[in-house]
Amino acid sequence: MDHTSSHRPDSGQSAQSIGLVTTQTVTLFEQGDPLKLDSGATLQPITVAYETYGTPNDTLSNVILICHALSGNAHAAGHHHPNDTKTGWWDSYIGPGKPFDTNRFFILCSNNLGGCDGTSGPSSIDPKTNKPYALNFPLITIGDIARLQKALLDHLGIKKVLAVAGGSMGGMIALQWALDYPESVGGALIIASTPRLSAQNIAFNAVARQAITQDPDFNNGDYYHGPKPERGLSVARMMAHITYLSEKGLHEKFGRRLQNREQFSFALETDFAVESYLKYQGSTFGKKFDANTYLYITKSMDYFDPFPDPETTAQRLQKVHARLFVMSFDTDWRFDSSRSKELVRILNLHQKNVSYQEFHSPHGHDSFLLPDLEYSRSIATFINRLYDEELHRRHHKDRPA
Amino acid sequence: MDHTSSHRPDSGQSAQSIGLVTTQTVTLFEQGDPLKLDSGATLQPITVAYETYGTPNDTLSNVILICHALSGNAHAAGHHHPNDTKTGWWDSYIGPGKPFDTNRFFILCSNNLGGCDGTSGPSSIDPKTNKPYALNFPLITIGDIARLQKALLDHLGIKKVLAVAGGSMGGMIALQWALDYPESVGGALIIASTPRLSAQNIAFNAVARQAITQDPDFNNGDYYHGPKPERGLSVARMMAHITYLSEKGLHEKFGRRLQNREQFSFALETDFAVESYLKYQGSTFGKKFDANTYLYITKSMDYFDPFPDPETTAQRLQKVHARLFVMSFDTDWRFDSSRSKELVRILNLHQKNVSYQEFHSPHGHDSFLLPDLEYSRSIATFINRLYDEELHRRHHKDRPA
Repeated sequence: MDHTSSHRPDSGQSAQSIGLVTTQTVTLFEQGDPLKLDSGATLQPITVAYETYGTPNDTLSNVILICHALSGNAHAAGHHHPNDTKTGWWDSYIGPGKPFDTNRFFILCSNNLGGCDGTSGPSSIDPKTNKPYALNFPLITIGDIARLQKALLDHLGIKKVLAVAGGSMGGMIALQWALDYPESVGGALIIASTPRLSAQNIAFNAVARQAITQDPDFNNGDYYHGPKPERGLSVARMMAHITYLSEKGLHEKFGRRLQNREQFSFALETDFAVESYLKYQGSTFGKKFDANTYLYITKSMDYFDPFPDPETTAQRLQKVHARLFVMSFDTDWRFDSSRSKELVRILNLHQKNVSYQEFHSPHGHDSFLLPDLEYSRSIATFINRLYDEELHRRHHKDRPA
Repeated sequence: MDHTSSHRPDSGQSAQSIGLVTTQTVTLFEQGDPLKLDSGATLQPITVAYETYGTPNDTLSNVILICHALSGNAHAAGHHHPNDTKTGWWDSYIGPGKPFDTNRFFILCSNNLGGCDGTSGPSSIDPKTNKPYALNFPLITIGDIARLQKALLDHLGIKKVLAVAGGSMGGMIALQWALDYPESVGGALIIASTPRLSAQNIAFNAVARQAITQDPDFNNGDYYHGPKPERGLSVARMMAHITYLSEKGLHEKFGRRLQNREQFSFALETDFAVESYLKYQGSTFGKKFDANTYLYITKSMDYFDPFPDPETTAQRLQKVHARLFVMSFDTDWRFDSSRSKELVRILNLHQKNVSYQEFHSPHGHDSFLLPDLEYSRSIATFINRLYDEELHRRHHKDRPA
């Protein structure tokens, strides 16, 4: 399997950016049956925004589906314009010579259903009214998000993915794929995630939604032609941002350092650097993200609970034969390692093919997005082994008896 | 020292409520010099609301000062009306036969400077304008809060307290007393507290202030004659409330239990019990508390940092000879045990008389308010030993040579 050796993620200089990429869109469910959602509602038509990196092989056996988290989008790698200073959200991990190696794999990432970056969501036009859906958009689940991704792959003629991978909420979607489409998934990489939200996670989501819906500009979700509830959304984001970072990471980055001043303001000013940083993060996010999407997506996370009781668990896991790799980070307190271990426990209890690794990182929940050599190698090892086995199977199948 | 034996906190039936109590008010700094604040500003006159429980002895050697936390007030024990279902905030610990035993001690608790429950704060009338101070109230520090308490005790003729005690921010005030008034403090009980806020603590405070100041009803703090920024304050409180409880405690209390429903709403409704609980907590607090006080008090906590560097630390601790007892709770993540240990480390490094105990409790930061036998006994042991030693000293001093 010498073709792996040239693609090791630690090969230094060889890892490059995928370069210029373009977001594509496709409209599904235009004719025929609509998409049936877990709530019982239906949706039709549905636009999906997606990006691809690398080249599919002849048998389409090298496809990897990347699932994004709450505020992510289809732009997982590369850049959109030559002058872009920002790259896709998982650019450290997707590209030539990177763990999701575009020299070897065909990578696909789509904006989640309910999103606000090209895929149908509350900000999309409802064909029935020719106005944005707003709160008329149906509530969605993680299962619905996976269902639309499956429809996209069907549309593209892809019957099976070598692997599905995601961090945080993206990890929930990856798990959902392994459960709902067992014949279509070779392996699932579930990173910094959880089999269900805890009461504390739900509580933080509830406060975020309260901040948004109490913003007078929220206007019961119907704000697309007036001022947007940016203030409420920015407060929600500021709070969430605290949960993405470790206490230690925040301390090391900011400590009690003052922002552009030598002494306290003794006024209701921004005194500390950490305040300034959070306000900037909140304000930027409040301007660019859709508040209704934030409501819908947090709700879909609240609802996620594939293993609510032993009977359901056994039934849901019966047909699962994907290889599963669960990864967590030791300073993540949003979804701490005990959540990943709980998932591993459930999967092992049901004789699933599961591996687990905890990585050391000072960066808390955000670690799954940040460059790290050991984490990088483990992803590459998992993905390459899946593919090597696939090639091996194919080689033996094709060889004349 | 047999008089301690009848006051053990675990004596069961003997512990009673202090019964009906009344809040008293006194106006200080009416004439003469105003109160000088750490910011350089001055304040005059200042009303202080306080309550007392128990009876002072002839020599005033049995006085204990209780310091309240962010949202507390002077009403620490007993009830105000015969039909009150709610008692004072530390009623489990203050009363006849309780750790702060009113059969033995004279207990005093005053509303903090900047508060909104009787002591001068942003909602008080500024004599210069005959309108509420609002944001014209000067910024205050933990040192200023202690300073006003000291003025109150001076006014009452109390030169020295047997002990000063408080949890959370109240613990910061207790520590401040030991530092600023070394001759006036026998012992300090610093519970579930910290020598300084971390970057994460400051970050949470910053989000809370943002939620309040972005509420359109905030009106730059000048809202006393119109609608109040209840929504922003309620969001701030909901978020803070999450940090008061442990993840485990929230899980055990609520888990993923639904609120008055059998299945998900599939709408932007309150689905989970934990959401409902938090919304109720936020809404109640938003109606009763003053948003400006919330801003000022969180800022005073942000600023608290008595040991910023080794030189200042050595200088501040030089004259301290109070006996110090630092207590923490193992599931507190707002001010976790490592903060208390850091304080203990500093105090030991400077040869101070310090004890430390960590208690096991599932209730997180709120543990300091809740009944617990071991914690209760440790408070009683500390307080009674301080007093027994005081009596012993006095006995030997009074005995003819």
